Amino acid sequence: MHTDLKDLRINMERLSGRLRTLALVGGTPDGGVCRLALTKEDKAGRDLVVSWMNDLGMTIQIDAIGNVIATMAGKTAGLPVTTGSHIDTVATGGAYDGNLGVLAGLEVVQRLQEAGITPEHPIAVGFFTNEEGARFAPDMMGSGVQQGALSLEQCLDTLSIDGKTVREELVAIGYAGEHACDFRAKAFLELHIEQGPVLEQKGGVIGAVTGVQGISWTEVTLHGVSNHAGTTPMSMRKDAAFVAAAIAVELRQIASDFGPPQVCTVGYLKLEPNLINVVSRKATLTLDLRNTSEEVLQAAEARAFAFVESAAADEGLRVEMRTLARFAPVDFSPDIVELVAREAEKLGHIAMRMPSGAGHDAQMFAPNCPSGMIFVPSAGGISHNVREHTDASQIEVGANLLLQAMLELAC
Amino acid sequence: MHTDLKDLRINMERLSGRLRTLALVGGTPDGGVCRLALTKEDKAGRDLVVSWMNDLGMTIQIDAIGNVIATMAGKTAGLPVTTGSHIDTVATGGAYDGNLGVLAGLEVVQRLQEAGITPEHPIAVGFFTNEEGARFAPDMMGSGVQQGALSLEQCLDTLSIDGKTVREELVAIGYAGEHACDFRAKAFLELHIEQGPVLEQKGGVIGAVTGVQGISWTEVTLHGVSNHAGTTPMSMRKDAAFVAAAIAVELRQIASDFGPPQVCTVGYLKLEPNLINVVSRKATLTLDLRNTSEEVLQAAEARAFAFVESAAADEGLRVEMRTLARFAPVDFSPDIVELVAREAEKLGHIAMRMPSGAGHDAQMFAPNCPSGMIFVPSAGGISHNVREHTDASQIEVGANLLLQAMLELAC
Repeated sequence: MHTDLKDLRINMERLSGRLRTLALVGGTPDGGVCRLALTKEDKAGRDLVVSWMNDLGMTIQIDAIGNVIATMAGKTAGLPVTTGSHIDTVATGGAYDGNLGVLAGLEVVQRLQEAGITPEHPIAVGFFTNEEGARFAPDMMGSGVQQGALSLEQCLDTLSIDGKTVREELVAIGYAGEHACDFRAKAFLELHIEQGPVLEQKGGVIGAVTGVQGISWTEVTLHGVSNHAGTTPMSMRKDAAFVAAAIAVELRQIASDFGPPQVCTVGYLKLEPNLINVVSRKATLTLDLRNTSEEVLQAAEARAFAFVESAAADEGLRVEMRTLARFAPVDFSPDIVELVAREAEKLGHIAMRMPSGAGHDAQMFAPNCPSGMIFVPSAGGISHNVREHTDASQIEVGANLLLQAMLELAC
Repeated sequence: MHTDLKDLRINMERLSGRLRTLALVGGTPDGGVCRLALTKEDKAGRDLVVSWMNDLGMTIQIDAIGNVIATMAGKTAGLPVTTGSHIDTVATGGAYDGNLGVLAGLEVVQRLQEAGITPEHPIAVGFFTNEEGARFAPDMMGSGVQQGALSLEQCLDTLSIDGKTVREELVAIGYAGEHACDFRAKAFLELHIEQGPVLEQKGGVIGAVTGVQGISWTEVTLHGVSNHAGTTPMSMRKDAAFVAAAIAVELRQIASDFGPPQVCTVGYLKLEPNLINVVSRKATLTLDLRNTSEEVLQAAEARAFAFVESAAADEGLRVEMRTLARFAPVDFSPDIVELVAREAEKLGHIAMRMPSGAGHDAQMFAPNCPSGMIFVPSAGGISHNVREHTDASQIEVGANLLLQAMLELAC
């Protein structure tokens, strides 16, 4: 890298302006953003970002699942050093989740152009279809198809929550691209908000993300017997609500016994008939277990599932368990993690090495090229909420770190 | 009592016929009954029962809350020995809950008439407005107003779940009676299905009800913080769902530690936002505690409420508790309990002495006159359900026991 490159910084005013402008597309009265994947709001957001890519003279390819990759040529041909994220949002989204990674990528390209620098390797900036999974399941669909983890045909046939297929909605918004879903990167680095409270609580500004937690989602359905809460002795009950509660308490104990980074959550619970004076005949609940270690995650699952079976048997309930999602942990490239940490230090910050508790497009690239992520703090740990916020000064640090790390990889 | 009276028996064919006929009023396609209080179905049921009372030449009075009392004269004036129950049902009711007690009472009167017997004291048969509380709260409204436990004016102003007042609905169906709500009985005895599994499980046919459990209903609202289930370390959570679950588990433990007849139930639980991957920001649940001893019930409440406070504090939640209902236990007259047990034995059955877990009109009479109840078994302990069932042979035993006990009290 040329010695003068290390002093290159992004234009924060321009980046903030683009973040604000994009947030107006699908903006909600309460200051949030609703740009669900492949809706007309998503189309308007895509068109805006593509216009900025065109303004930068980048070569744009759109693939069959609607991913958009814009490339700036390097001195040599070959695979591009790539950054990017997504611009779809949840229904109650904010300005930064996903959008920051895409627009900071464009800012990297524009600063290189302004500085008259042609990188050794091409640099690409992408945004990937339906990362949120809020309108179509699964999430990380675009990057998953592109990097070979998901089937294109199955994803195109996927129905939205409002009954449309991915295929028809891609056509409807004009993003059913002709390019094959076969893009490969020399390396992939994604800037994203943390969506958790750790950086803020630890007083950090920057996270060097070491990997993504493995996720185990299970739906448990407990079948008991509905009975009068006054006239049915405790010994004669088959109370689905009680066993559901016991499972939720056990999950907290598992998290405690296993220790961090193991997390366990019962976030969904539905009782039937759900009446004050009726013993529940049915309870449906979800178990969300996550760990960075596949081995530990499997151990946590084994203990949780065994408890479900035994607690249900003790109460005389019939139990059904169904896997809703299961992703093994992803380890990011140690080289990329070190690069991020080193460049952060050069910028005067200590990067906190941390796993991601949420899924991100970068994890889809990890099997195919050296990959990693940069986190900036989420105020109060809040995301998927109109109150999502990151201070401008923290965004600036993150974008400059992305710039310097991309230069290191590409120049 | 005359020696020949002890051989008197009810006419089971006639009683079964009336039960079937009344069950057709508001009958549902699945074989159940929906005759919510003060609806046009309730009016039709009332009109039918009143026509039977008129056929028996009884003197009918309707009071201002719509209770109907039909009296057969005795040799002497004075307070009547009274039986009865209710004919309103829940939306998914059956043929026997309430109706049995009213129609068996009419059968008692008719058999006396057929046998040419004039009792020493008048005999009255009543049905009381809105016992179920399914359309208007609280339940046991008619008997409660009549026996002085509830305010007439407040009850008349009560709104139904469909937005009508008791007052206007009484007028609409023609049962806003002119009689004051001041009826008093010499004694009150109610025949009712158990609505629980105890008699069936213990192989019994008849229960001599010793009293009604005290009831404590509390709504607990827990205010936590919504957070991402993947990115929020366990130590930073304020998880309303977890504390709700811990409370439900503690309630089971309280029931176990206190032992029968203490029962504890969490039948209602609602999480917000109730999503698989979101730590709950809010949980609303209900605590249903019952015991036959006021002292023990208070001890159970104290332990439960203390646990709610401490568990919420440990998790950093704000908690609200609201009393939804609180009734002290009711003890029935030992003389009536003994009478029921003695007459059962004469009929060749051992009456099981047992408390009622559910509320009944008889408990409203208990402060004002010697009162008691007779239970017949509920198949599978099921009630408030179209599958509610009691064998005809068991109904016959119960009705004959009512007949003999009423004769003992009135002759």
